[in-house]
Amino acid sequence: MKKYEGKPVSFEQIELTHGFWQEQQRLVKEVTINAVYDRFEETGRFGALKGDWKEGMPLKPHIFWDSDITKWMEGVAFYLQKNRDPEMEKRMDELIERMEKLQLEDGYLDTYFIVVEPEARFTRRPDHELYCAGHLVEGAIAYYKATGKRKMLDIAIRFINLIDQTFRLEQSASFDTPGHQEIELALVKLYTLTGEVRYKELAEFFIDHRGCSRKDRENNDTDLTNIQSHLPVREQKTADGHSVRALYQYCAMADLALLNREEELTRACETLFENVVQKRMHITGGVGSTYLGEAFTFDYDLPEYTTYNETCASIALAMFCRRMWLIDADSKYADYAELALYNTVLSGMSLSGDRFFYENPLAADPRRNDFNGARAEYLREHLPILERVKIFDCSCCPPNLVRITGAIGNYMYSVSENTIYAHCYMSGKACIQLEEQEVILEQRTDYPYDGSVNIETETDGDYTLALRIPGWCSAYHLTVNGEKAEYSANKGYAYLRRTWSKGDQVSLELEMAIHRIEANPRVTNLCGRVAVMRGPIVFCGEEVDNQGLALRDVRVGAGDSFRVARETLCGRSLPVLYGQAESRKDFGELYRFSEGDMETVTLKLIPYFAWANRGVMEMNVWFLKK
Amino acid sequence: MKKYEGKPVSFEQIELTHGFWQEQQRLVKEVTINAVYDRFEETGRFGALKGDWKEGMPLKPHIFWDSDITKWMEGVAFYLQKNRDPEMEKRMDELIERMEKLQLEDGYLDTYFIVVEPEARFTRRPDHELYCAGHLVEGAIAYYKATGKRKMLDIAIRFINLIDQTFRLEQSASFDTPGHQEIELALVKLYTLTGEVRYKELAEFFIDHRGCSRKDRENNDTDLTNIQSHLPVREQKTADGHSVRALYQYCAMADLALLNREEELTRACETLFENVVQKRMHITGGVGSTYLGEAFTFDYDLPEYTTYNETCASIALAMFCRRMWLIDADSKYADYAELALYNTVLSGMSLSGDRFFYENPLAADPRRNDFNGARAEYLREHLPILERVKIFDCSCCPPNLVRITGAIGNYMYSVSENTIYAHCYMSGKACIQLEEQEVILEQRTDYPYDGSVNIETETDGDYTLALRIPGWCSAYHLTVNGEKAEYSANKGYAYLRRTWSKGDQVSLELEMAIHRIEANPRVTNLCGRVAVMRGPIVFCGEEVDNQGLALRDVRVGAGDSFRVARETLCGRSLPVLYGQAESRKDFGELYRFSEGDMETVTLKLIPYFAWANRGVMEMNVWFLKK
Repeated sequence: MKKYEGKPVSFEQIELTHGFWQEQQRLVKEVTINAVYDRFEETGRFGALKGDWKEGMPLKPHIFWDSDITKWMEGVAFYLQKNRDPEMEKRMDELIERMEKLQLEDGYLDTYFIVVEPEARFTRRPDHELYCAGHLVEGAIAYYKATGKRKMLDIAIRFINLIDQTFRLEQSASFDTPGHQEIELALVKLYTLTGEVRYKELAEFFIDHRGCSRKDRENNDTDLTNIQSHLPVREQKTADGHSVRALYQYCAMADLALLNREEELTRACETLFENVVQKRMHITGGVGSTYLGEAFTFDYDLPEYTTYNETCASIALAMFCRRMWLIDADSKYADYAELALYNTVLSGMSLSGDRFFYENPLAADPRRNDFNGARAEYLREHLPILERVKIFDCSCCPPNLVRITGAIGNYMYSVSENTIYAHCYMSGKACIQLEEQEVILEQRTDYPYDGSVNIETETDGDYTLALRIPGWCSAYHLTVNGEKAEYSANKGYAYLRRTWSKGDQVSLELEMAIHRIEANPRVTNLCGRVAVMRGPIVFCGEEVDNQGLALRDVRVGAGDSFRVARETLCGRSLPVLYGQAESRKDFGELYRFSEGDMETVTLKLIPYFAWANRGVMEMNVWFLKK
Repeated sequence: MKKYEGKPVSFEQIELTHGFWQEQQRLVKEVTINAVYDRFEETGRFGALKGDWKEGMPLKPHIFWDSDITKWMEGVAFYLQKNRDPEMEKRMDELIERMEKLQLEDGYLDTYFIVVEPEARFTRRPDHELYCAGHLVEGAIAYYKATGKRKMLDIAIRFINLIDQTFRLEQSASFDTPGHQEIELALVKLYTLTGEVRYKELAEFFIDHRGCSRKDRENNDTDLTNIQSHLPVREQKTADGHSVRALYQYCAMADLALLNREEELTRACETLFENVVQKRMHITGGVGSTYLGEAFTFDYDLPEYTTYNETCASIALAMFCRRMWLIDADSKYADYAELALYNTVLSGMSLSGDRFFYENPLAADPRRNDFNGARAEYLREHLPILERVKIFDCSCCPPNLVRITGAIGNYMYSVSENTIYAHCYMSGKACIQLEEQEVILEQRTDYPYDGSVNIETETDGDYTLALRIPGWCSAYHLTVNGEKAEYSANKGYAYLRRTWSKGDQVSLELEMAIHRIEANPRVTNLCGRVAVMRGPIVFCGEEVDNQGLALRDVRVGAGDSFRVARETLCGRSLPVLYGQAESRKDFGELYRFSEGDMETVTLKLIPYFAWANRGVMEMNVWFLKK
């Protein structure tokens, strides 16, 4: 095999035909896009773009409002890519009109710094100015690609050119690198689209100067580690500080490592990736253990009730995984992407599609929230909310969910030379460009609820198909046209090399057993506990399904003590698990001499992502191990 | 039996002869008293009594400094009661001189409100003014009783008379009841000493008006529940708010319930007591689960790493227990007093006697403290410190430890009619006044390290001796003069009624087995876990004794898998436990499919109170149950 050089296959090349993600996209398209639009309209976010706010008026523009808008626009563009929609485009074009009018002569475009504090432009490192610019670029690219309309792209490019001039060429801003990373990966996208090397150079400038800029250190009143400015990025070995900032940075690092084939940056990405997933990630793919700074904490610190686990952070983790599988063909990257996507990312949105979580804890105890809420303000602690809401003051997660869902096809395939990698399984038709041929594949599956994956070739061709064998799968069966297939296995991929004919049927049967997972003994709160998974889905128990059970006290047996069933929950058909488990009989005293009179109980579990859709109640992921 | 009417036997009637508490008293006398004095001197507390502080000078007097001084003085007086000491009395007399000079014409005496904010006198409910007055009274009574010197007592009485005039008779203060309870129980002591009914009436005024005063509600900018002013005291059913304030209040309620034989107040005390010990108390007798308001939280909320468990709160719990056993002859009260005293109270002081904990968590993870300490201030959470310090800004606990240790004899006996109750066992000679006779008993024991208790009568007499059978003791043997004794057992006391002759030997053998204790399933973090106890002592594991073990992952077997040994730790001979236990073999990954390859390990445990005397390290009380 030649040296691996992964290249992405864009969702643009893919049509989801049915199944889990198509349903999810329908929900987002029919409900979420409009729900987010309405909330942003009500709260003045779109109105702010008119630039007519004056001191004393209500709805003062906020530093990150621009990014809320452009993230929503990018998400919408992903849907327009598949289905043009004149009415939605009219909304988009109106917003773009406002941007055009607001943009200053020199290209500057940031509502907050134009309307509220014009004198502070390019002086406030932590204030999301470049972060907003990054999302403007991403939104503009997506809309251009979806519709061919250039106006937003031109606006974005004008602004980016000014930023490049100011930050890189003149170095006249009062800081060197963004307080909140994001623009770096937007710049790589812009470079890829336009071929203009200055955008890659600006991305490199931001990445290379991060953690080594004297200006950044001097113009600073924040915790340097929390914004990943404590060390040059290539020397960062542990995932520290604000989790979304960190993971966006790692994405940009991986982008540049790939573009430049840079060994040192590649190693840094691998080291940081391993630290995230082997030391600082919840079993749900949630990251960021503390709300203080919305941050990573320290190795093995994975609290269940109070962890932050921002929805956006898990979106960013999936994005990082997708870049990493272009660096190395190891199926672990897709495993972790799925953990994040199927658990914490999905948990960020209600089954109804119009309510959101910012924080995604692993356990819920309404007693604590009730107690806390009843106290005077000065005696309250920060706790995750236990019911999703329609909007947040800082509302980055809802439009991010629109974006990730709209472009979920990005997670299906990648290519390297003459090999097609199938990473995350979903039903859809893909048109994949290899070096010397175009391949059309149709995938059919009920994954993640079922382990059968069928791929039909719709083109003839001579290439390798590499199918991911997920880490949770201990047995699988692979056939081509009904016959046991010859394949070689390497780092979690089964490589089928052959001359394919139109109509060939590849069938992969992944045994989807129910597993108990245990955490490293250093995770102090998880000792003695296990989580229950089936495929990439983590399950949880909710009070409403387990009346009278003390959920934290339930001891679960091995995976085969559970059975799976399909049930309707809030209008959605979901897999649920029923398990024979044990629990102590309730006793009145607070303490007693240990005796151990257990009773057998039935524990019902639902997918973690479906929690908190039936009111505020106790929820638990990690159960005692029988 | 006639109706039970418990009466205390004061430590003044008792001479500790050897054993655990005599040693502890020696430590306090030789080290702690002087260590606290030196720190208070350095920090300006004693100097402040001169009343010459002016704005702009350093060492500004603080609202609770007076109470630090008078608590220390009360503690010293308890030692002077046993051994007069001219040098120490000189120090005391000098302080009393300063008080006399500082006291205003009308009797007012509070350093802060005389020197710093004279205009604010009697207007600031939360500001410890009456709390300081209470401790002045208690210190004065103790010094008067120890030495017969009246000056401090007269000073205190002048101040109390002013308070009575202002608060009760004229009701001219801008609030009705203390923001921090304490004066109520001091007033009962003053009433008991002087027979002056106005002091009892003032205590009643404060207790009866609490939670029903419009003035208190209007003159308020704090959380009413946190200062137990949300409900009239007789309607309070759960232990809420600041734990020391709460427990001092319950002590005063019990005092008045006893004095007035009031049924309603008695029931309220019993209800509150049960709520504390059956819903809101750690196995170490620690209470107050949150640093936010230093407060009780809600039922079954007993976090291990972050609980507050203020040393003073457990002292107050022991004080409450001692009052409750005068209300009802149930040995549970002495059981809980011992839990508090032998675990959290002792944990409040280093084995060296000169360093103190304010907070006493049930588990320590230095990784969290290190991470937290390295962050910028605005990103830090409050965490208990993991090493004792010489002084705190708010230094109530150190002098409180001097007080409780000096008067520990209070916990040995009580009487009711012709019955002598032996509660907490310790070696000492007691002279006990019954209705028609004086009884002298000499008790010899190595309790709490050994379950043998021998009591020798030094007087003839006809009375009942009621010996406490601790709740943790499942087998015991009782003899008189070597012969199996006839006794009746009731609510944890063995009643020996006979005509005693000088020289009679009572021997009580309490089987002191090692037990695993489990907590109610509703305590979410303790499910699957057990604590290890021997007698009233809770044991813990520290990193230094268990190198390489992941303490939280250790599974301990039944009590008989442990053996006890006596070892020297920091110069003190202490019982330690060695147990055969199990732990998972360390593995590298963060998560894995549960397998369960256990290895047998030896776990070494030391008494909880001895933790954190050998540096900062991991500590754990609740282990997994094998």
